[in-house]
Amino acid sequence: MLVLFTDFGLAGPYMGQMKAVLYRDAPGVPVVNLFADAPSFNPRASAYLLAAYVAEFPEGTVFLCVVDPGVGTAGRRPVVVQADGRWFVGPDNGLFDVVAMRAAERRRWEITWRPEKLSASFHGRDLFAPVAARLARGEPPDGVERPWQVEELTGWPEDLYEVMYIDHFGNAITGIRAQSLWPEAQLRVGEHALTWARTFGEVASGAAFWYENSNGLAEIAVSSGSAAEVLGLEVGSGVEVVR
Amino acid sequence: MLVLFTDFGLAGPYMGQMKAVLYRDAPGVPVVNLFADAPSFNPRASAYLLAAYVAEFPEGTVFLCVVDPGVGTAGRRPVVVQADGRWFVGPDNGLFDVVAMRAAERRRWEITWRPEKLSASFHGRDLFAPVAARLARGEPPDGVERPWQVEELTGWPEDLYEVMYIDHFGNAITGIRAQSLWPEAQLRVGEHALTWARTFGEVASGAAFWYENSNGLAEIAVSSGSAAEVLGLEVGSGVEVVR
Amino acid sequence: MLVLFTDFGLAGPYMGQMKAVLYRDAPGVPVVNLFADAPSFNPRASAYLLAAYVAEFPEGTVFLCVVDPGVGTAGRRPVVVQADGRWFVGPDNGLFDVVAMRAAERRRWEITWRPEKLSASFHGRDLFAPVAARLARGEPPDGVERPWQVEELTGWPEDLYEVMYIDHFGNAITGIRAQSLWPEAQLRVGEHALTWARTFGEVASGAAFWYENSNGLAEIAVSSGSAAEVLGLEVGSGVEVVR
Repeated sequence: MLVLFTDFGLAGPYMGQMKAVLYRDAPGVPVVNLFADAPSFNPRASAYLLAAYVAEFPEGTVFLCVVDPGVGTAGRRPVVVQADGRWFVGPDNGLFDVVAMRAAERRRWEITWRPEKLSASFHGRDLFAPVAARLARGEPPDGVERPWQVEELTGWPEDLYEVMYIDHFGNAITGIRAQSLWPEAQLRVGEHALTWARTFGEVASGAAFWYENSNGLAEIAVSSGSAAEVLGLEVGSGVEVVR
Repeated sequence: MLVLFTDFGLAGPYMGQMKAVLYRDAPGVPVVNLFADAPSFNPRASAYLLAAYVAEFPEGTVFLCVVDPGVGTAGRRPVVVQADGRWFVGPDNGLFDVVAMRAAERRRWEITWRPEKLSASFHGRDLFAPVAARLARGEPPDGVERPWQVEELTGWPEDLYEVMYIDHFGNAITGIRAQSLWPEAQLRVGEHALTWARTFGEVASGAAFWYENSNGLAEIAVSSGSAAEVLGLEVGSGVEVVR
Repeated sequence: MLVLFTDFGLAGPYMGQMKAVLYRDAPGVPVVNLFADAPSFNPRASAYLLAAYVAEFPEGTVFLCVVDPGVGTAGRRPVVVQADGRWFVGPDNGLFDVVAMRAAERRRWEITWRPEKLSASFHGRDLFAPVAARLARGEPPDGVERPWQVEELTGWPEDLYEVMYIDHFGNAITGIRAQSLWPEAQLRVGEHALTWARTFGEVASGAAFWYENSNGLAEIAVSSGSAAEVLGLEVGSGVEVVR
């Protein structure tokens, strides 16, 4: 399976252009669009977001990931990463560091292959998609291995105490794994202190709370309402644990 | 074929996460996203909307449907419904009652199977998608049959005299089947009385009218404009027939 | 491969309904959604937009294209166009004229086949999708050949000096092929004169510029910002070349 994780947006031609390359180069392999609205210009929040969604995909899944900045400018090498049997293709701008940090086994290769025509701005289509398709067909990575340096991975906190994503319903997904909290923990955002609930149905309509979402993250919600609007949250808003 | 009918929104990971399960468990079966923006928190309008789109899909199609409220709280059983040869999987919160009411043959089973890991908030991925995939592979439903009680289906009017959906162009799809009207019928929304036209091309630019849309429903439109904006319509707005 | 190019919007049922027909009638053929937000009610801008994205798809690709006006009213014949080995299905309202003008080889057929049930408003599903599926299965076009008249194609300028599309990031794609400019060319939009840069990374944050995008078009952008907002651009805004 091929999984897309980008900040390209659903509208416009970019998703379709990448999928066309994948269908051409890896016929019969299903392509799933996981996020097209990963935090723009924010590889750090994107790295935590990606890491939270990886575990439900089987070994051998190939993730094609693009979040600027870095793509198309010098100093951001294209890489293939292997972490616990899953593959990741994209720019080496930190996007894969949280996945690598949490993995038992990790390898990294710099992609040295270049297509005949490489546009300056759309490496997702021209470079990353053909490489991802080859991995999905079962070919080994073709590049120069670049092992992770210990210091590359030690600068990242275990969890990200920020809002990483606001969904369609206005729920705010944080970078805090619920397993690192305890049920009585309160989360503070701005002036608001939020207590835990198991699910929406257990909370009065209009009340704000946090719960463990279906990917194990602490998520801030308002029952029958938009937490983003009610609490004034956006991607990057800080979240504190009241201990 | 597998068809998705949800209020999850296109953005965000939910559609992709469900599709990943479907591709994994029912390889080779195409997955079509029919609605990702069914009326939120409104299983009643969603039930009429779904019923209007069912007939164009062949027998054997499996509809995976999720519209809150009800999912993840007690008292809303997960069910499989079979109606005129098509399958429906989702919560038993009324979502399938209009389809069932209009079907010549209908059966219903409560889903007793539970996955090893069942999140509190994402039954679409954890419970309904694996069940839908098994039906799409041709397996029989696995659960306890719960025949429809007559009184469950008699509380629903034949048609819904409301706006059920506002589309990309600002057209307002009502829950009224055009066959239950007559061409000279006028529809009233707020202060506006609307006459019938066969198609957009027959109406002056900027004029409001109603027509029979491609799914047989009375739809309110403004030629070269947005009916929602011009007439102040939203999901739930009442529609009267002037007799 | 089947490629969709429409103004139907991603939300709502239209994309899904068309895909369902394609999957039913051309099983196993991948379907790619290129644009669902082509310039609405603007077949002229849509014609230039389509022409810029055709070359990256292989011969034999079938493009299913619908942009109003014209569909469902008299005087707009449904056609199949073959241009340099690629197929196009849709209304004969100018949408394929730029592709045809630029092609070395072009043929056109009027579609005379009609489905049993043809709705007044959704020819994309009822008429164009079944025809596109048959072409994708390798069947020849079934209709009356209508060769292009020379005068039909000579009224179109080589390039369109307008904004054709605003993407997710606020970048404004023009109808000007960069190859028809020269690197020192300045583009003027409203009060703003824009110089060329190779890529975003070479421009100061917040600065406006133009560059050759990944499809060979002059695209107007603001580094780390939205050109549409900063420069007040929308689809149809004029673009001048300062010579």
